[in-house]
Amino acid sequence: MTTQQLIHQIQEKKSFLCIGLDVDLDKIPQHLLTTEDPVFEFNKAIIDATQDICVAYKPNIAFFEAYGIKGWISLEKTIQYINKNYPQIFTIADAKRGDIGNTSSMYAKAFFEDLKFDSVTVAPYMGKDSVEPFLAFKDKHTIMLALTSNEGAFDFQTLNVNGKELYKQVIETSKNWKNSKNLMYVVGATKAEYFQEIRKIIPDSFLLVPGVGAQGGSLQEVCKYGMNSNVGLLVNSSRGIIYASKDKDFALKSREEALKLQNEMKEILISNPTLNLQS
Amino acid sequence: MTTQQLIHQIQEKKSFLCIGLDVDLDKIPQHLLTTEDPVFEFNKAIIDATQDICVAYKPNIAFFEAYGIKGWISLEKTIQYINKNYPQIFTIADAKRGDIGNTSSMYAKAFFEDLKFDSVTVAPYMGKDSVEPFLAFKDKHTIMLALTSNEGAFDFQTLNVNGKELYKQVIETSKNWKNSKNLMYVVGATKAEYFQEIRKIIPDSFLLVPGVGAQGGSLQEVCKYGMNSNVGLLVNSSRGIIYASKDKDFALKSREEALKLQNEMKEILISNPTLNLQS
Repeated sequence: MTTQQLIHQIQEKKSFLCIGLDVDLDKIPQHLLTTEDPVFEFNKAIIDATQDICVAYKPNIAFFEAYGIKGWISLEKTIQYINKNYPQIFTIADAKRGDIGNTSSMYAKAFFEDLKFDSVTVAPYMGKDSVEPFLAFKDKHTIMLALTSNEGAFDFQTLNVNGKELYKQVIETSKNWKNSKNLMYVVGATKAEYFQEIRKIIPDSFLLVPGVGAQGGSLQEVCKYGMNSNVGLLVNSSRGIIYASKDKDFALKSREEALKLQNEMKEILISNPTLNLQS
Repeated sequence: MTTQQLIHQIQEKKSFLCIGLDVDLDKIPQHLLTTEDPVFEFNKAIIDATQDICVAYKPNIAFFEAYGIKGWISLEKTIQYINKNYPQIFTIADAKRGDIGNTSSMYAKAFFEDLKFDSVTVAPYMGKDSVEPFLAFKDKHTIMLALTSNEGAFDFQTLNVNGKELYKQVIETSKNWKNSKNLMYVVGATKAEYFQEIRKIIPDSFLLVPGVGAQGGSLQEVCKYGMNSNVGLLVNSSRGIIYASKDKDFALKSREEALKLQNEMKEILISNPTLNLQS
């Protein structure tokens, strides 16, 4: 998917909501557990109930790998279901991968070619040659960790290097990598005041923003400091949406939660005169 | 596996060789491609031919994921084969994982409980709460990236923070994490001169050392600066061993290559009077 197609979808739906699929068998409705593939059945119901009000789905790969081969089958079925039925939706493999060049090439092959995701999250610690293999894929997007939403973000990401925080150095350095136009960045909503600084370095890039809702981040604050003229944000919510109910009406309830966020997004988009919202 | 059991194995075998299983279908002998599971058949042959002269196997998870469900089946069969037939061997899931706490818990479950690996490699960028879930498993080991063997290692790992290189800060900080005794560290052989400094911070920890052979690192140099009284090193070689031949005798040839390294290791161990080599 091209960035332009993603922007177009945001304009059409008046939404920049990404729904995270972190499916834990202990947390899904009991009645699904007797089906052949509870994880896929759960995802399918959530997707069908929310696809018109969100622009992206982000399966969290750990939650599939934890169930071994069965989990990998559920993952394949989930991504194939989205790609077949809702091809306009942007898909993110939340995998946080990164290794030496030939190994990163294999991960890129796994997520871009085999599973056909539009994007994958990667970690920056191993530097240029661990990320560039992902960037080589046309119309695929590599979403690199910059400033994450967890407590441990302050262990290393905000340390001072060359007179600036490490996460800023990471972003700046990555701009020089080959095909860096295919980069997006993870920036946690819990640190909204940092968005202003980040936008000085990468005014045009898309940011994937976890941490709204369960982790305490504010959508208003994120948009105030992080939005650019093409919106430039994908705001993720996982648990707050998908675990809205454990009853048979779970999909409907998840839609209601997603709708609350999307309505807030719609208002922000409509009330912002600087946005380029013409289709 | 306990650290003591690993040390015992090193003493018995006079080897601290780890063999990396990075299986690329384009590089394995042609005659295997007609079997039902070429990746597993290849691994099985390599393992049977080398298990008495190495102490660890390190399946590179990317090379399995790149083949989707088939790849995950090959991975399960490979780890089960090692655990069943050679339970004394230390197993490393080379996965470079790391995410927010509840997600890291899922990865830990995948590799420690579901697949029953002894250890897994993780990336430090997301800090304490992304690594501690792995450390919570008794007699399991978490091998964190410190200073890697690739070119990109110099992008961020060696940047100056608080008057020292980032990788040193990463190691120092990690010593304060809960169950940090379960940590080992990745330190590339291509940077042997750094081992002396690293040993000042973590004299007792095991180091997983990639980069000997194909990537140009010297075993002698690594041992000179990195060995402690319990050896404290697992030196990995992947391509140099497993792709020694594409003919039917590939397993034998891989043994010959492994034996070269193990002989060198044996000499180093025997000639070093400060080592605690009594069983």
